Amino acid sequence: MSGALFIVGLGPADARWLTHEAQETLDAAQDIIGYTPYVARVPERAGQTRLASDNRVEIDRAQEALARAAQGRRVAVVSGGDPGVFAMAAAVFEAVDGGPRAWRDLDIRVLPGVSAMQAAAARLGAPLGHDFCAISLSDNLKPWDVIAKRLEHAAQGDFVIALYNPASRARPTRINDAFALLRRHLPGETFVGFAKSIGRENEKIILTRLDEAEGDKVDMSTLVIIGASGTRRIARDRARDWVYTSRKAT
Amino acid sequence: MSGALFIVGLGPADARWLTHEAQETLDAAQDIIGYTPYVARVPERAGQTRLASDNRVEIDRAQEALARAAQGRRVAVVSGGDPGVFAMAAAVFEAVDGGPRAWRDLDIRVLPGVSAMQAAAARLGAPLGHDFCAISLSDNLKPWDVIAKRLEHAAQGDFVIALYNPASRARPTRINDAFALLRRHLPGETFVGFAKSIGRENEKIILTRLDEAEGDKVDMSTLVIIGASGTRRIARDRARDWVYTSRKAT
Repeated sequence: MSGALFIVGLGPADARWLTHEAQETLDAAQDIIGYTPYVARVPERAGQTRLASDNRVEIDRAQEALARAAQGRRVAVVSGGDPGVFAMAAAVFEAVDGGPRAWRDLDIRVLPGVSAMQAAAARLGAPLGHDFCAISLSDNLKPWDVIAKRLEHAAQGDFVIALYNPASRARPTRINDAFALLRRHLPGETFVGFAKSIGRENEKIILTRLDEAEGDKVDMSTLVIIGASGTRRIARDRARDWVYTSRKAT
Repeated sequence: MSGALFIVGLGPADARWLTHEAQETLDAAQDIIGYTPYVARVPERAGQTRLASDNRVEIDRAQEALARAAQGRRVAVVSGGDPGVFAMAAAVFEAVDGGPRAWRDLDIRVLPGVSAMQAAAARLGAPLGHDFCAISLSDNLKPWDVIAKRLEHAAQGDFVIALYNPASRARPTRINDAFALLRRHLPGETFVGFAKSIGRENEKIILTRLDEAEGDKVDMSTLVIIGASGTRRIARDRARDWVYTSRKAT
């Protein structure tokens, strides 16, 4: 039995952000398992099994992948961005933690990828150039008061903040609650950027400020970046302004 | 004049973590500019100029790269990991901000890469699976009290913490100051991981806990990850334990 489970980061949308390691692993896998749009991004190969499933069944998907690896198959679980950042890697290890003892002897490897946050930052300039944090606004698995506490400490600690999952069908206005909370701690001119569908045809970037930020600009494919005191905007005449966070304390 | 400046992430050490985009851009560049060990990681090509310099001259290097792009050259500034995370992208935009107005019309693109933090997390399991922050302990450009304030808020906000630049010749014991501060806010059993030289031959990983963490384990090539309340360790008999951060609030 020489099964193995690879948890592969596809990067955000554009195949040019795939690493060599991820490419080789996808080419050699027997089973490709993941959320439907991510599986669709992997070119089909003869002899490869493809198991696409809904976004809400992460643990089921992880268990299926582990069971197949335990049967000796070479399985690739695919994730958009980096599987280690708000994605499938934690779900797989959670399944191992609660699963049969034999799963702990499996060969499981996480293959990092470019995260949505990094791709968004690259398009803007260098907003994550100094101390930053990443917070998921999804309250599927944690209550709002935990999220609110993290937002408060992030603001008080003067971190650049990257917000994942700022909106969903179940809670489209959650981002407005976050903006309202942050306005109590941060100046109105604090930089806010919306990066939507980075690397896709409908990519859209909006630069604004906290006192003018409107939550109706976000959807499930939007990453929101909120600046710190060291975040600067470089005015440009012929193109979108650049944004960076100075490495110097202010 | 069709000059351009690409700020290219090489990923951490191993060329298998390079993206397709980064590879193509390095192949097509006329000038490769960067800190000496990063330039050394780019295979030499006939006709390409290579300018390697010391780590402490980031702004000089950025200005040189911008001046060359302004002269019409295709320039690649190379960074280990992701250039947007504690690396050259912020230095380049800082140089633009303080430089000639004409530099604002240049074609400057940031090419994201896998960061040291992500590669370290991938080796450990999925410690960055939920809300996390990244803090540089370097006090070259910011005073210790700013760093201390961020560490306190990171601990109080229950973030997983990735520490960059935990040690240097000038301040080898800075990490011990950070551990002492964090022990005042976090339980002794809090997970601490040291990830040294990830992707290189001398790669070394140490798993420990906050009350047993010793700063003499770190050097300039070490990334330190400190767990949150949701961080779990999966005991294994035949290999190093896995570590992940649960997506559920605790």
